[in-house]
Amino acid sequence: MGLIYKETDPVRLSDDGRAVIALDQTKLPNEISYLSISGAQEMYDAIKSLAVRGAPCIGVFAGYSIAVLAKRYADEGMPADDVLLRLKEDASYLDSSRPTAVNLSWALKRQMSLAEKCCKNGFSAKDMASSLCEEAVSIHEEDINMCRKIAEYGLSLLHDGDGILTHCNAGALATSRYGTGLGPLLLGKEKGYEFHVYSDETRPLLQGARLTAYELMRAGVDETVICDNMASLLMKRGKIQAVLVGCDRIAANGDTANKIGTSGVAILAQYYGIPFYVLGPYSTIDMSTPTGDDIRIEEREPEEIGTMWYEHRMIPEGAKCYNPAFDVTDHSLIAAIITDRGILSAPYTESIATAVKEKP
Amino acid sequence: MGLIYKETDPVRLSDDGRAVIALDQTKLPNEISYLSISGAQEMYDAIKSLAVRGAPCIGVFAGYSIAVLAKRYADEGMPADDVLLRLKEDASYLDSSRPTAVNLSWALKRQMSLAEKCCKNGFSAKDMASSLCEEAVSIHEEDINMCRKIAEYGLSLLHDGDGILTHCNAGALATSRYGTGLGPLLLGKEKGYEFHVYSDETRPLLQGARLTAYELMRAGVDETVICDNMASLLMKRGKIQAVLVGCDRIAANGDTANKIGTSGVAILAQYYGIPFYVLGPYSTIDMSTPTGDDIRIEEREPEEIGTMWYEHRMIPEGAKCYNPAFDVTDHSLIAAIITDRGILSAPYTESIATAVKEKP
Repeated sequence: MGLIYKETDPVRLSDDGRAVIALDQTKLPNEISYLSISGAQEMYDAIKSLAVRGAPCIGVFAGYSIAVLAKRYADEGMPADDVLLRLKEDASYLDSSRPTAVNLSWALKRQMSLAEKCCKNGFSAKDMASSLCEEAVSIHEEDINMCRKIAEYGLSLLHDGDGILTHCNAGALATSRYGTGLGPLLLGKEKGYEFHVYSDETRPLLQGARLTAYELMRAGVDETVICDNMASLLMKRGKIQAVLVGCDRIAANGDTANKIGTSGVAILAQYYGIPFYVLGPYSTIDMSTPTGDDIRIEEREPEEIGTMWYEHRMIPEGAKCYNPAFDVTDHSLIAAIITDRGILSAPYTESIATAVKEKP
Repeated sequence: MGLIYKETDPVRLSDDGRAVIALDQTKLPNEISYLSISGAQEMYDAIKSLAVRGAPCIGVFAGYSIAVLAKRYADEGMPADDVLLRLKEDASYLDSSRPTAVNLSWALKRQMSLAEKCCKNGFSAKDMASSLCEEAVSIHEEDINMCRKIAEYGLSLLHDGDGILTHCNAGALATSRYGTGLGPLLLGKEKGYEFHVYSDETRPLLQGARLTAYELMRAGVDETVICDNMASLLMKRGKIQAVLVGCDRIAANGDTANKIGTSGVAILAQYYGIPFYVLGPYSTIDMSTPTGDDIRIEEREPEEIGTMWYEHRMIPEGAKCYNPAFDVTDHSLIAAIITDRGILSAPYTESIATAVKEKP
């Protein structure tokens, strides 16, 4: 097990292998606190509440969760067959915590197929638990290597000085080390690139404002938080040269599920002629999903919108914000201008001039 | 003066003419409280803080403000020439409170040109104040009539049962009685239409969540609040048949300034083939502004984004919210999918299938 944990990893195994240690991401950026999680119910809650979040990170967490549960059952003296039955129940329960990201079920399936193989080959419960622990570490290591590769590929498409727009959080907090969507920015910083990054705050849960701003500031990347509805103005003003986002599931035709609002950003980028890049591990491709229409979209509690669940600052102390109060809609986008003197339609230069002349 | 004030009018004159009574819109939907405003500094603050907001409503407020100030100076025994000088200073000060909406300077100019005419014709200070009061009432009455007409024109473009998306608040709170952007919906309700309205919450100050939801619920219109970044998903799912927004300034070529985020909604609407309607009084057209590039965009305090200025519920008790956590980005919008196994590009059905086959 060549993995050396870093303090900053959002998810890791406890030294005794009896708990998953997870950074509580609902507390960022005001508080850095870690959860020590050893039961299936707590694991479910950690994913559901977004304490553990980010598609690849949820996969790593699920891998460790199965390892921790297997060790507990083995320590309790349960025979391997019974452990397998219990793990099947646990895996199915954990899989139901969030439906959209593919990584959760991918990691659970990988662990469960290993557990079945162990059982079939007559492993003891203890040996099965050890194998599952090694596999969880492999999943984590692969995630780290994969993020580095994604970061390198992504960086090859960017230029020093570029303005970059991001949505939600696809950084080290969502994955391991470099992250996916933020990987090229973090790697670029190491290599001396100076990007100007704008982060959509990403309502309702503010992952962009709380997490992306926190990560990028810590890495010394120039970073400004905007409200989700300000992206169009920035693009129009030429501040954005590329959009980088992560992904939760990629269908066989390329349609990609990601945090709510991503499709809107992509439509704006196309309108303004800005490249929109999706970054994610190969394992996010789900060939059993033909198109985006086949991806189930999670619907969450209405109260996340109606009340402010977050009692402290919504962005890190000292983070920059840009707060324009208006923007301008190009006349080519307007179907009609409805005034007290009638309905004006395109070409507006003519219809407006005529209406003004008719002034009584 | 045929105007009969309604309790629900967001702005009106006090019975003694010495104060403008304004609904404090920063307190909605949790508290209905009125400000009684008699000094220029308070007037400036009321506009700047958005206690009084909505382009047409600011115009009505500015008209009454000049009348109240003129009456005070006259009551203090100031001669008409001096009153005019003081009002010029006041008008210039009030005009600087918010730069984007045309209605503020339009109403101030209208009152000041009347004040100059009064002076030139030898009016006493008291008579000048009376004239300005009558003119303010006229501005208010015209606004009410104009809103009704806009509502009728707008309604002619909609169909019973339509799903409607709105952004910010352009209802009776922003204007008088029917409002502009919400006018067709309120008038439609009176005439028995059943619309399904979705309101963008409109970050950072949540006018859509706090004010539009409040107004439409009170009127019995079916209303659901969404975060700004959820509009694309609703449009894709066929829930929106038209977009209605107000406006702060319309340039001679039809380019229109409105609350931040409006241009993004318009681009989404065009992408999904949904008509995007701008509703506003004729006076919002500014022929001295050739195009949208000539409109100055107000930039506000970063802290409006970074801290939650609003300590209570962000939407009215009982209002519906829709809270999808993800959406799907069509592959046609993606410039490249960057994975740990390389950069995939269109056509994705082929590049993905090839990448999957190469699996080591």
